[in-house]
Amino acid sequence: MVVHDPVRVLALAGGVGGAKLASGFAELLGERLTVVVNTGDDFEHLGFQISPDLDTVMYTLAGIANPESGWGIAGETWHFMSQIERLGGPAWFRLGDRDLATHAIRTERLRRGDSLTAVTSDLCHTLGVRARVLPMTDDRVRTTVHTAGGSLPFQDYFVRLQCNVVVSGFSFVGAATARCNAELSLNDANVPDAVVICPSNPYVSIAPILALPGLKQAIKDCGAPVIAVSPIIAGAAVKGPAAKMMRELGAAPSAQSVAEHYHDLIDAIVIDDSDSESAGAIEALGLAARTTPTLMRTQADRVRLAQECLDLAEALRASGR
Amino acid sequence: MVVHDPVRVLALAGGVGGAKLASGFAELLGERLTVVVNTGDDFEHLGFQISPDLDTVMYTLAGIANPESGWGIAGETWHFMSQIERLGGPAWFRLGDRDLATHAIRTERLRRGDSLTAVTSDLCHTLGVRARVLPMTDDRVRTTVHTAGGSLPFQDYFVRLQCNVVVSGFSFVGAATARCNAELSLNDANVPDAVVICPSNPYVSIAPILALPGLKQAIKDCGAPVIAVSPIIAGAAVKGPAAKMMRELGAAPSAQSVAEHYHDLIDAIVIDDSDSESAGAIEALGLAARTTPTLMRTQADRVRLAQECLDLAEALRASGR
Repeated sequence: MVVHDPVRVLALAGGVGGAKLASGFAELLGERLTVVVNTGDDFEHLGFQISPDLDTVMYTLAGIANPESGWGIAGETWHFMSQIERLGGPAWFRLGDRDLATHAIRTERLRRGDSLTAVTSDLCHTLGVRARVLPMTDDRVRTTVHTAGGSLPFQDYFVRLQCNVVVSGFSFVGAATARCNAELSLNDANVPDAVVICPSNPYVSIAPILALPGLKQAIKDCGAPVIAVSPIIAGAAVKGPAAKMMRELGAAPSAQSVAEHYHDLIDAIVIDDSDSESAGAIEALGLAARTTPTLMRTQADRVRLAQECLDLAEALRASGR
Repeated sequence: MVVHDPVRVLALAGGVGGAKLASGFAELLGERLTVVVNTGDDFEHLGFQISPDLDTVMYTLAGIANPESGWGIAGETWHFMSQIERLGGPAWFRLGDRDLATHAIRTERLRRGDSLTAVTSDLCHTLGVRARVLPMTDDRVRTTVHTAGGSLPFQDYFVRLQCNVVVSGFSFVGAATARCNAELSLNDANVPDAVVICPSNPYVSIAPILALPGLKQAIKDCGAPVIAVSPIIAGAAVKGPAAKMMRELGAAPSAQSVAEHYHDLIDAIVIDDSDSESAGAIEALGLAARTTPTLMRTQADRVRLAQECLDLAEALRASGR
């Protein structure tokens, strides 16, 4: 099946997994893709304003992401970091020499009063990214991780402690008063043909976006089919702590749990072939389930999965959902 | 002649030439050397607080300076800069990957309220520098270069325009109200055995230091012999625009002009063998002149020139000057 112009997609994404699917959509849709990216794990480090998920999406769409790690820039070097270590500076968060250019430019422009949206747009333009990449908000939202031993800023949990503590919940500090990105409009003239929740961590990548006042309701009300792609395959996350978090929060790590987590927002979920036995339970929630290979090893995998989502959206529209 | 413990030297220095002689003194004196360094050409670039002369002195004393350029770090790489260029950022001022670690740490600490003196001291300690390296002030002083076409911040003149405009004068904005480094005390208990004006640019490296309220008089009053080392050899500067500036300001570029420039502050000047014919004119100014090879190609050259300065200081003290 071919893509019918002018299909437009709004994708919600965190870092690596979200960026991969976004890159599939970007190849199919170019500038008709809008990616709204989590900024809850943004933080300040060594004086730099760092937006890990935005950079992962941007580098991935620009085709310069490190294919091994999924984040950072391919062929990166680490001379800055080794000198920081020599000077006794903090080395737990690794900043590559090339990556640092992004942080330096962003930090300086934000300090001069430019918005994160404007800076991101200019960086994307310079890197040849045609899709629209939007930080979820230009306001400050910070994900806090709650544990039995107290609360932690997200990067302390994620990078410094390598997720080696048990989580009990999350707060998105600032979200209640933050304004959703002003360029993200879901009014009549701007309704996308599909809203896709990328295979990102539901708790710390997608939840901060959906915590912005009015956004979840606007997505539900806009009339476009809403499709999630499960980040859980055969009981495990492809990358990151999503499955571990599910267990710690009392949910079985499964595609079905992802469907339950999103059930009041989505119309359908794309799950991996290996999870096909969950399809019945998901449909019992009133959701459509589509099974397909969801592991994205190559750019072709990403494009194929993006096309599956477009096909599913068209089927949902045709069936009046 | 051997150095008599505990000889102490106060050196005034700018960048490359000053750093070289300072490194000769440091080898002879260790922690008994204090280097007061020009900060008039400090500036903010790409959000970083950059102190070019301080860094050149620090890297040189640490033995990690780039031996070809005289500034920056040996074996430096430029991946940050190439990415800055790719992203359309400003590339006229080159920041090396390792050098950037210094700027990042300094910028963050200054923003947190630490003094430039404290940051410099800690960086020097980490790099194994035993001499005391003091920024001339913790206050903001900025050298402005006056030209027929208007006034320029120093780094615009020096790096961006590569000194390719005619200068008519200099201002040290902020100097009149800046306080000389609080750790630089010239009271009775702290009088050095010699004050040495390193072979740095008289107009833009040494003049900003001497523009700090009270410092010049304190040096004259402290009783130590004051010795300048001419940065001009055979009518030319070893590096930088000193000779060009002299011509543009109406002075012949010569060791004699350097002596005239400093005549009301110094007791003696060290000039190169090739300028020995100037000795008579210099002595006619009431100054002692010592001729010796002053070009510092090797560390041994630096140590030998430093030793010449110590010998001269001892001779001046013995003669009651």
